[in-house]
Amino acid sequence: MATRRGASTIALTAGSTIAGFACVGGKLEGEGPLRSGFCQIFPDARAGQERWEQAEIEMHKSALRLALRDAGRAARDVDLFFGGDLLNQCMATSFSLRDMDMPLAGLYGACSTFALALGMAALAIDGGGARRTMAAASSHFCSAEKQFRFPLEFGGQIPPSAQRTATAAGAVLLDAAPAAARRPIRVSAVTVGRVRDLGVTDANNMGAAMAPAACDTLCRFWADTGTEPADFDWILTGDLGQVGSRLLRELLQAELGPEKTAAFADAHRDGGLLLYDLDRQEVAAGGSGTGCSAAVLCAKVLPEMEAGRLRRVLFVGTGALLSVVSPLQGESIPGVAHAVELQAES
Amino acid sequence: MATRRGASTIALTAGSTIAGFACVGGKLEGEGPLRSGFCQIFPDARAGQERWEQAEIEMHKSALRLALRDAGRAARDVDLFFGGDLLNQCMATSFSLRDMDMPLAGLYGACSTFALALGMAALAIDGGGARRTMAAASSHFCSAEKQFRFPLEFGGQIPPSAQRTATAAGAVLLDAAPAAARRPIRVSAVTVGRVRDLGVTDANNMGAAMAPAACDTLCRFWADTGTEPADFDWILTGDLGQVGSRLLRELLQAELGPEKTAAFADAHRDGGLLLYDLDRQEVAAGGSGTGCSAAVLCAKVLPEMEAGRLRRVLFVGTGALLSVVSPLQGESIPGVAHAVELQAES
Repeated sequence: MATRRGASTIALTAGSTIAGFACVGGKLEGEGPLRSGFCQIFPDARAGQERWEQAEIEMHKSALRLALRDAGRAARDVDLFFGGDLLNQCMATSFSLRDMDMPLAGLYGACSTFALALGMAALAIDGGGARRTMAAASSHFCSAEKQFRFPLEFGGQIPPSAQRTATAAGAVLLDAAPAAARRPIRVSAVTVGRVRDLGVTDANNMGAAMAPAACDTLCRFWADTGTEPADFDWILTGDLGQVGSRLLRELLQAELGPEKTAAFADAHRDGGLLLYDLDRQEVAAGGSGTGCSAAVLCAKVLPEMEAGRLRRVLFVGTGALLSVVSPLQGESIPGVAHAVELQAES
Repeated sequence: MATRRGASTIALTAGSTIAGFACVGGKLEGEGPLRSGFCQIFPDARAGQERWEQAEIEMHKSALRLALRDAGRAARDVDLFFGGDLLNQCMATSFSLRDMDMPLAGLYGACSTFALALGMAALAIDGGGARRTMAAASSHFCSAEKQFRFPLEFGGQIPPSAQRTATAAGAVLLDAAPAAARRPIRVSAVTVGRVRDLGVTDANNMGAAMAPAACDTLCRFWADTGTEPADFDWILTGDLGQVGSRLLRELLQAELGPEKTAAFADAHRDGGLLLYDLDRQEVAAGGSGTGCSAAVLCAKVLPEMEAGRLRRVLFVGTGALLSVVSPLQGESIPGVAHAVELQAES
């Protein structure tokens, strides 16, 4: 049974544990610092398909299959699937589920989707409505460029504040009962984010558009749960990149003061900065995309938690809720951030 | 606390009741059979805005404000908001929530979104994670035509199997505690749908693409709960229209046999056929769009339940999960349907 904590956080008391997880990535992701954490690397960005959208669907399905295999489960064992992606009408998710027979609760939260999916998947188990749930998300550099910016052939230039959409997919299977052979990792609390828009209109600076939402959700989480930054081994923001990460620390400084902000800086990691080597790989201000935080969680954070090297992690997925037309219409970019607390048993 | 019933239905035991609801519509919707059920009609399809997307956002926000007012609540009283729309990246929902300070769990299920939102909103309360939740959805004929088909100025022709995207938005506020002055309507069970794709490739025949998913979800709901069509006053499909409704009955005939199918036909209503007068209004095979079932539920079903004329309603939202590019890529159209059981106290 879930219980409310403070104004806007949900504490999960019955608990759901992570029974399996997997992530897949493209060539660039497979050459980055997390290469050994990927279950499968697709050296061909088309994944053997004719179109970018179909390539993303193939990767999305691979992540689902591998996560099911990691948990020793079949699709029919999953009571509820929560997932999404960046494609118009969440095409990668819906079309993946044609071949995977799970009840589909489709989500949209831009790059925050994986955190939202993980939170909803945990909430469904905790409320008694499901025994096993799945959370997944994907993105693909080429399908995203085609949809949001220019065809690749155009060779568009990007400013240093831009982030590279990750070609990646990740999936987690949650179970009401912990698996015997794994160190239990529980989803212990969830804070669903509010939309924050401070007027950023530059679609090549989404870190700046998302940072205020991350600040809002983090501060609400800490206030609701009576915790502070120093209580966490890692505080993982989804994909703020270099610009957004710096802005988040500035915003937190005003809210928390210097001491707690220093503790935050110690614990803070950003998925967009973990996925690539910014000195060596051409990704401007870092990675982004719905698959970015999903891959970082599955390739790095969960393995470290299972190995006992991280015990308490606050994962804050961050999303820029622009549409393909909204920047062309002069609209500013709303941001949202969802927090999920993960705890590994010692 | 929610409990599982059968293979895939969630029974809600603590119960959440409907504390307020509202819907708004465009000119055509306001001239249809449900005209008296709308809280606000927008005679100007632009709703005073320059662009269709902004018009849909205005209508979406109006529905939210009116539902909050109906419940005597402010946005800050809502613990979780579940909603979505048809626009790329669910723009109407995300941009509406810029001005409405509620935690946003964005959903995508095409025209099934409102049923999914209502189910998730009820589940969140039943699981103990929220006291008050909101479910909402919108669509707009002009923003949908622009995005999925042709600019209006093109004057595209449609075949008789096509359905008209409703210009409408609906919102429901759920509360853990029943309101003193209203007849309590409870959400009593939810079945999240699986993706079904029987190979329909005609984007002008979405009723046919969605009917198999409706059949699958209905049969699972009845099997899981030990009920049958005759147990319901109304069985409301979201927006199958004329073609999809006929196909659903054919599919059910094969599953249920003639007697139960006749009982189904007695109880069956379709949102796409209730919203417009097909003899008098030019809407081809009926209405559709994410706002269609939201408006029909709020303009017709919930008022009838509050008045005591309908006691037990099975609402099955139906969605065609095509994307703006998938039909052009030769893909068939996956369908999904989510069931929500509503019961009014006598």
